[in-house]
Amino acid sequence: MAYNVAPLSRLIEQFERLPGIGRKSAQRLALHVLNLPEGEAESFAKAILDARSQIHHCSVCCNLTDAEVCPVCAKDSRDHSTICVVEDPRDVIAIERTNEFRGVYHVLHGAISPMDGIGPEQLRIKELLARVGSQVSEIIMATNPTVEGEATAMYLSRLLKPMGVRCTRLAFGIPVGGDLEYADDVTLGRAIDGRSEM
Amino acid sequence: MAYNVAPLSRLIEQFERLPGIGRKSAQRLALHVLNLPEGEAESFAKAILDARSQIHHCSVCCNLTDAEVCPVCAKDSRDHSTICVVEDPRDVIAIERTNEFRGVYHVLHGAISPMDGIGPEQLRIKELLARVGSQVSEIIMATNPTVEGEATAMYLSRLLKPMGVRCTRLAFGIPVGGDLEYADDVTLGRAIDGRSEM
Repeated sequence: MAYNVAPLSRLIEQFERLPGIGRKSAQRLALHVLNLPEGEAESFAKAILDARSQIHHCSVCCNLTDAEVCPVCAKDSRDHSTICVVEDPRDVIAIERTNEFRGVYHVLHGAISPMDGIGPEQLRIKELLARVGSQVSEIIMATNPTVEGEATAMYLSRLLKPMGVRCTRLAFGIPVGGDLEYADDVTLGRAIDGRSEM
Repeated sequence: MAYNVAPLSRLIEQFERLPGIGRKSAQRLALHVLNLPEGEAESFAKAILDARSQIHHCSVCCNLTDAEVCPVCAKDSRDHSTICVVEDPRDVIAIERTNEFRGVYHVLHGAISPMDGIGPEQLRIKELLARVGSQVSEIIMATNPTVEGEATAMYLSRLLKPMGVRCTRLAFGIPVGGDLEYADDVTLGRAIDGRSEM
């Protein structure tokens, strides 16, 4: 590009590195930041630095937190005998939004994926096994319904069942509000397999 | 949201304020920043602060620059008698990419839009008029082909023509590689109006 102003180009490059942001979006975001009112660009920069310096993994469930133990693990009113195992901190946010789950979580920070060089030792599985004791009655595998998520759920259940823990898997089927006609074959097959009495 | 970690929520909020970034994208971007290697989040924050503190408007053309005069205005090899008037710094980047234009620019930082409360006095029109002298022979109106852009081009040409400057407008017509069949009526009409000898 012929028109090159160093601080602007650097900011565009930084935005361009973010996932899902292309060249044009990066330009738009960078110019938006330049046009922010006084102080707001500083708050943005500070939010990045604060998040990086203050956020770390919960010592119990490995979710993101700014305290020693995350808000969910710290709450006595939660059912600490049921652990929901998820791949990503965003999955915790999604499940919390349903207000359906009163147990606690364990965040693996990924799924087993030999193609990407991610084996069990790269995930927070050691920490999960350390939590399993007499007080844990059920572990819900809430990994994604992908090849990697299924493999991870399978791997964990084979490790955990011999330890005397009940392992369950999220139900898969037709999404609520979905249309049978447009459901893909695998989903429809899982919905039939998992049918329940009414 | 039940799961609330202050520094993370603040970062998500900051990303959510950017144009075109919704709640889910903001979460994804914030978690990406948290997972960046050591030092990269700091570079990101620094790029924001540097751009804000070092970038200002060129004293000649009002484009963004970190020097007193932008690289285009500072170059003697450019044709300083032809000024291309654009709405936005991004338009300069787009035109520079074509390598077709050897003149200089003037950035208005917007277009006349009474609906949004933007009148001529909110734009860098005063600065454009100050540049018009004996050495300027042509001013190309390269505002967008929208109602606001057209109104701005019309307004400027009425101001500039009595000053003895030649005012031209970008050609509008069928995009190169486009399909006549799918061109909208207005574009096709403009293409017929603006036909040229061959």
